[in-house]
Amino acid sequence: MNMITSALFTDFYELTMAQGYWKDNMNQEVVFDMFFRRNPFNGGFSILAGNETLMDVITNFRFSEDDIKYLADQKIFEQGFLDYLKDFHFTGDLYTMDEGTVIFPQEPLVRIHANLIEAQILEALVLNHVNFQSLIATKTARIWLASKKAPIMEFGLRRAQGPDGGMSATRASYIGGAAGTSNTLAGKEYGIPVMGTMAHSWIMSHSSELEAFRDYAKIYPQNSVFLIDTYDTLKSGIKNAIIAGGELVEKGYNFGVRLDSGDISYLTREVRKELDRAGYPQAKISVSNELTEEIITTLVASGAPINSWGVGTHMVTGGNESSFTGVYKLAARHDKATNQMVPAMKFSDNPAKTTNPGIKNVYRLYDENGMALADILSLENETLEEGKEYRYYHPMVDYRQFTCKAAKVEPLLKKRLEKGQRVTPRLPDSEQLKISRTTMQSQLESFDESYKRILNPHIYKVSLTEKLMELKKDFIEKNIR
Amino acid sequence: MNMITSALFTDFYELTMAQGYWKDNMNQEVVFDMFFRRNPFNGGFSILAGNETLMDVITNFRFSEDDIKYLADQKIFEQGFLDYLKDFHFTGDLYTMDEGTVIFPQEPLVRIHANLIEAQILEALVLNHVNFQSLIATKTARIWLASKKAPIMEFGLRRAQGPDGGMSATRASYIGGAAGTSNTLAGKEYGIPVMGTMAHSWIMSHSSELEAFRDYAKIYPQNSVFLIDTYDTLKSGIKNAIIAGGELVEKGYNFGVRLDSGDISYLTREVRKELDRAGYPQAKISVSNELTEEIITTLVASGAPINSWGVGTHMVTGGNESSFTGVYKLAARHDKATNQMVPAMKFSDNPAKTTNPGIKNVYRLYDENGMALADILSLENETLEEGKEYRYYHPMVDYRQFTCKAAKVEPLLKKRLEKGQRVTPRLPDSEQLKISRTTMQSQLESFDESYKRILNPHIYKVSLTEKLMELKKDFIEKNIR
Repeated sequence: MNMITSALFTDFYELTMAQGYWKDNMNQEVVFDMFFRRNPFNGGFSILAGNETLMDVITNFRFSEDDIKYLADQKIFEQGFLDYLKDFHFTGDLYTMDEGTVIFPQEPLVRIHANLIEAQILEALVLNHVNFQSLIATKTARIWLASKKAPIMEFGLRRAQGPDGGMSATRASYIGGAAGTSNTLAGKEYGIPVMGTMAHSWIMSHSSELEAFRDYAKIYPQNSVFLIDTYDTLKSGIKNAIIAGGELVEKGYNFGVRLDSGDISYLTREVRKELDRAGYPQAKISVSNELTEEIITTLVASGAPINSWGVGTHMVTGGNESSFTGVYKLAARHDKATNQMVPAMKFSDNPAKTTNPGIKNVYRLYDENGMALADILSLENETLEEGKEYRYYHPMVDYRQFTCKAAKVEPLLKKRLEKGQRVTPRLPDSEQLKISRTTMQSQLESFDESYKRILNPHIYKVSLTEKLMELKKDFIEKNIR
Repeated sequence: MNMITSALFTDFYELTMAQGYWKDNMNQEVVFDMFFRRNPFNGGFSILAGNETLMDVITNFRFSEDDIKYLADQKIFEQGFLDYLKDFHFTGDLYTMDEGTVIFPQEPLVRIHANLIEAQILEALVLNHVNFQSLIATKTARIWLASKKAPIMEFGLRRAQGPDGGMSATRASYIGGAAGTSNTLAGKEYGIPVMGTMAHSWIMSHSSELEAFRDYAKIYPQNSVFLIDTYDTLKSGIKNAIIAGGELVEKGYNFGVRLDSGDISYLTREVRKELDRAGYPQAKISVSNELTEEIITTLVASGAPINSWGVGTHMVTGGNESSFTGVYKLAARHDKATNQMVPAMKFSDNPAKTTNPGIKNVYRLYDENGMALADILSLENETLEEGKEYRYYHPMVDYRQFTCKAAKVEPLLKKRLEKGQRVTPRLPDSEQLKISRTTMQSQLESFDESYKRILNPHIYKVSLTEKLMELKKDFIEKNIR
């Protein structure tokens, strides 16, 4: 698979600053967190994706000779620094959650321990991969939930943001719950089921609709989904589909129909009646046409008898929300004076932009029925005991606190790269994707419906341990007041 | 540069249909138009981009042995058809407008003459490249116009839709008027100026803001733009910038400042006063922070003294509109009975989705001052004479007609591929991009301000010649009524 692994895939200022750190001998050990600030689509949750792709790229991220030459041509980099870049590769540690994890604002999704130059040069890379794929996995999960977990086919290639936008989007939408894709190359590269039967052009290229259906049925008897809205869905499309489909049923096959225009709720109900009346209750109805999770929700609520959905544009681009708010911030740095890691924190006039200091872990608390209660940010070396009561603190609002005794405590961050190398073997893409998709599906089961509502969801708690809250308060005390 | 040239980059149904056309001996000559239905962002115009990239990919579009093996594994393709795909490459002709052209709905932007199978397999490819880059070039042109053509720096890599989303977006935004990019790899690959100085992390990594500024100035005296909002823009940032910048001025250099938060209109005016008062009227002010064309418009209108702009997320993703409405439709096909090309047309219950039949050209009419009057769709072999009056017809609304005598008539579509090969040599990327960008800039000059308004623009006329209108009416008469 094509993969951009040139370390020039970075913002130029990272390189100008890197030269500064290099010259000033400031290349100390640091810890950066990638986290996000709010769930997209006014939703109650997000889905992590792209972090597996990220690790593939990080472990191959290099400046080629040609890249170095390009930098030299900029006339602002010294030879010594360029020599340093020649040997550049990631030598740090990377912690991340399982791909497919249900995630929430404030939580470190990727935690990088490295020297300052490596950590900074990776910034755009980390954000680019995780932001985009998480956006699309989240959008798809919403669409999949709205459909009541019906099969969703992704076919957004023609509207995706660039060629790899199409590939990454297909990957992420599979993690988010899509059953398959029209993108044949993604099918090959990632082992995702490819799907698709006919476009309007097939019907228009034949002398009649019936002939077009029969011709398709002859070639693909096991996989005929007739597109019935080319001329008139009810007067012609469904009638011809029943003729051609009936001939398939006689030969022992099944068939389906697809609608791509018109009032889907009304038409699918009429089409269902026609199919049942003709004796084909087993024939499936599939729909498409600029679908979103909101449109799917109203169609399902209207009782439209739809078996599967084809979704393109909105699923692969995010639709009206086209970016994920992930950021990458310094959490700790090595202090020469004391020779230890000390917490770092970004302040802001806007409290929502103030970060949580220190090297942090994330724990998910569950009740005795396996339902998620809250996610907790703790200090790195803290452990939370199951069955023991603790007090937890809202990350911004001082007086919002709660106590909780969890039946189960699950750590979410895992060390995946150590000194730049994978800790566990890289799985084949198709295997990894199935695992990531299963993670998404099984984790969503452990969240109450109220967090998964498409509109106006309940807000899931992400809180701090007492020790982390104390650290944060101390830090503010010493540095601001 | 990484480029996806596998012909599996297509929707799976194109391949299932292609096998049908192949088996049924229906692989006749066809003409497809790529056009779009409405300007994005409620704008009055769009900018064509990505068609140059498209030609690079089309001329290299092949099924590898591995791709063929993948298709064979799907168990629905016959060996004969797979053998046909082994030799697949584009052997047709491609017409398109110059990249950077100001474009309008209904106009064929890309016109492909090929056999049916080739033309269909290209569909997703054509749409993917042209839709995305045109979206971003259009967005950038709007931002550039809103800024009154100030320097715009693109730095959206971290929020772009996937790695190549970042690359293609940078390419397109340069065509749309961006002055440079933070994306170093795009700088190298496309010869786009790379820009960028310091992030907040630079300042936070130093023991004081002043030290951070001085340190940067020491290393990059010719290119110091101090980021002044890390602690307090007015109380600390601008004061330290004036100290460090003053030291640069004494050595014969200039400096600038950047603001990334707060009330930009108020703060830039205060900062400007401070700089002027300190004797540095030459010091430039740059701003960033989730900018859109609407925000830039209000900042410019408020009199904020801003010299340059840094724009990321919204420019590289389209923001709240994340796709371009380009479609790819059959316009003509070879008719065996008469052995000639006959027009094709798609009807729809929605008149806006009805296509214009036949092989069409596009002409731009200008008045004696060089200002664009209207764009005209004509039949392929029609020519419009300068200085001669013609009557033109609205593509949908019968009674909307006008007569017009143009001082200049410019054909917009040019043959660029013939039998699958470039008609003119491929230019180096950096040269092509400069030409495309100049096309955008000079063409926009020939459009009245009313078409370029950010909000509620005047609608530019795209009309049909009498002959094309007659053909369309005839076609409807014969095929529908």
